[in-house]
Amino acid sequence: MTDAAIIDGKAFAAGLRDRVATAVAGLKRDHGLTPGLAVVLVGEDPASQVYVRNKGKQTLEAGMESYEFKLPDTTSQEDLLAKVHELNADPKVNGILVQLPLPKQIDEQAVLAAIDPNKDVDGFHVVNVGRLNTGSADALVPCTPLGCLLLLRDYFGGALSGKKAVVVGRSNIVGKPMFNLLLQESCTVTVAHSRTADLPAELGQADIVVAAVGRPEMVKGEWLKPGAVVIDVGINRIEKPEGGTRLVGDVDFAGASKVAAAITPVPGGVGPMTIACLLRNTVTAACRQNGIDEPSM
Amino acid sequence: MTDAAIIDGKAFAAGLRDRVATAVAGLKRDHGLTPGLAVVLVGEDPASQVYVRNKGKQTLEAGMESYEFKLPDTTSQEDLLAKVHELNADPKVNGILVQLPLPKQIDEQAVLAAIDPNKDVDGFHVVNVGRLNTGSADALVPCTPLGCLLLLRDYFGGALSGKKAVVVGRSNIVGKPMFNLLLQESCTVTVAHSRTADLPAELGQADIVVAAVGRPEMVKGEWLKPGAVVIDVGINRIEKPEGGTRLVGDVDFAGASKVAAAITPVPGGVGPMTIACLLRNTVTAACRQNGIDEPSM
Repeated sequence: MTDAAIIDGKAFAAGLRDRVATAVAGLKRDHGLTPGLAVVLVGEDPASQVYVRNKGKQTLEAGMESYEFKLPDTTSQEDLLAKVHELNADPKVNGILVQLPLPKQIDEQAVLAAIDPNKDVDGFHVVNVGRLNTGSADALVPCTPLGCLLLLRDYFGGALSGKKAVVVGRSNIVGKPMFNLLLQESCTVTVAHSRTADLPAELGQADIVVAAVGRPEMVKGEWLKPGAVVIDVGINRIEKPEGGTRLVGDVDFAGASKVAAAITPVPGGVGPMTIACLLRNTVTAACRQNGIDEPSM
Repeated sequence: MTDAAIIDGKAFAAGLRDRVATAVAGLKRDHGLTPGLAVVLVGEDPASQVYVRNKGKQTLEAGMESYEFKLPDTTSQEDLLAKVHELNADPKVNGILVQLPLPKQIDEQAVLAAIDPNKDVDGFHVVNVGRLNTGSADALVPCTPLGCLLLLRDYFGGALSGKKAVVVGRSNIVGKPMFNLLLQESCTVTVAHSRTADLPAELGQADIVVAAVGRPEMVKGEWLKPGAVVIDVGINRIEKPEGGTRLVGDVDFAGASKVAAAITPVPGGVGPMTIACLLRNTVTAACRQNGIDEPSM
């Protein structure tokens, strides 16, 4: 049996970052507009510090402005909301991202709800969720599912209509927006999850599988339809038998790559797409806020 | 083969209206609160006039206040928005419904967006769509899919988890909110539509079918899984061979009732549930606005 093609998210993300940088250069040249992304980090969580640093670095590399705000982990909800309101009102700031998780004294939902939906480049605001679900062109789309969609559009040359897609997982961050995006592409979409009676039977029919459950290697190769295209959103760290750890996805890569037509690896698949889509969303938001046609990216 | 059980939406809706009336009586007695529903009708569309009259009548019968506003079909968008803002600010008005369609000079989306989401008893506001999609307890749910869900919960005694459901149709008014509701009940949910490659194959696996496509009798009995439960949202008027017209659903009732375990008739199935759920939503909205625990209805 032939091994599946590898969908190289790392390379695609690099290309997307280049297209974003080209778009940014065009906005500067033609409109005097430099998109700006504000990232707010509360506290000292080491993983969050790494994410925020990477986001800031890639924002600058794309030619945009990066505004970083590091607040102490004793910050009150009132002070954080005041910072969000200040960024909402600042025309230099086109995108606002409050890094999660937030310290215990702060109501995450209240903070996310305070972000201007048109600057909500994470796409988690209830207004953007509603826009996406209703098919509004104003939606800002969550970065990870948007990244999955861009990989699928690229693989299929845009011809997603009528494909049968199964999304495994129903989170607000990946599963549900992925459903909305695939439905918009006129796929027939099934959402499966922990209560699904017969997951292998569901997957055995799927032309497209998006796995986003956070359970290492739970989707087995023998469950897949031969020729399926598999997008693996999971990033799980597991212990190696010989000691040490390694990263694996939600899909049993070795088994799946014997059956699927194409598959994203972990790492190097969906992971690198997330920040690239955040940059793309920031340019999108900047264009909409300034009444400029969105460049193709 | 045994004929399917008939899911009697007319009787269920009558029972729901009784429970709403009991809830309203309790709110009056215990909290001095009489829920109020405002319906705004612009122009002279005969079908809309009938709907508005029925809504007003049933609102009063449930013991609530009904506020009807009939505006001329020359009403400007500005004047209609002013009316909506007035109703948003009026504490006696707990629910606001602007009857669609609106005259051409008015932007429907702008009017719907102006309604206070917490008074949006139609559940069409983008904020309520987002709340429903994310599973927020604050959502007001569109009346027709809510009615379908109540019928299904009643039929299955609440045991919907793990059932395989196929929703045919992807409208913002029925198909997509129905998906969200069934997913919340932990069904495995597929949304099929006009681009679906093999609708019979999808339906042949479904424990639950919700048909909402607006095409007379397009879902055939032989496509169904024996023992399926079928909710038919369609209301289509077709010509009879002998002259005159009759109402039919989106499902071939005669064929389906030979295969299904249970099915809603047309008329008398989903239809009567819509206004009953509007009344229920008005009580829900009134309770939330006043910080009162919602009575069971």
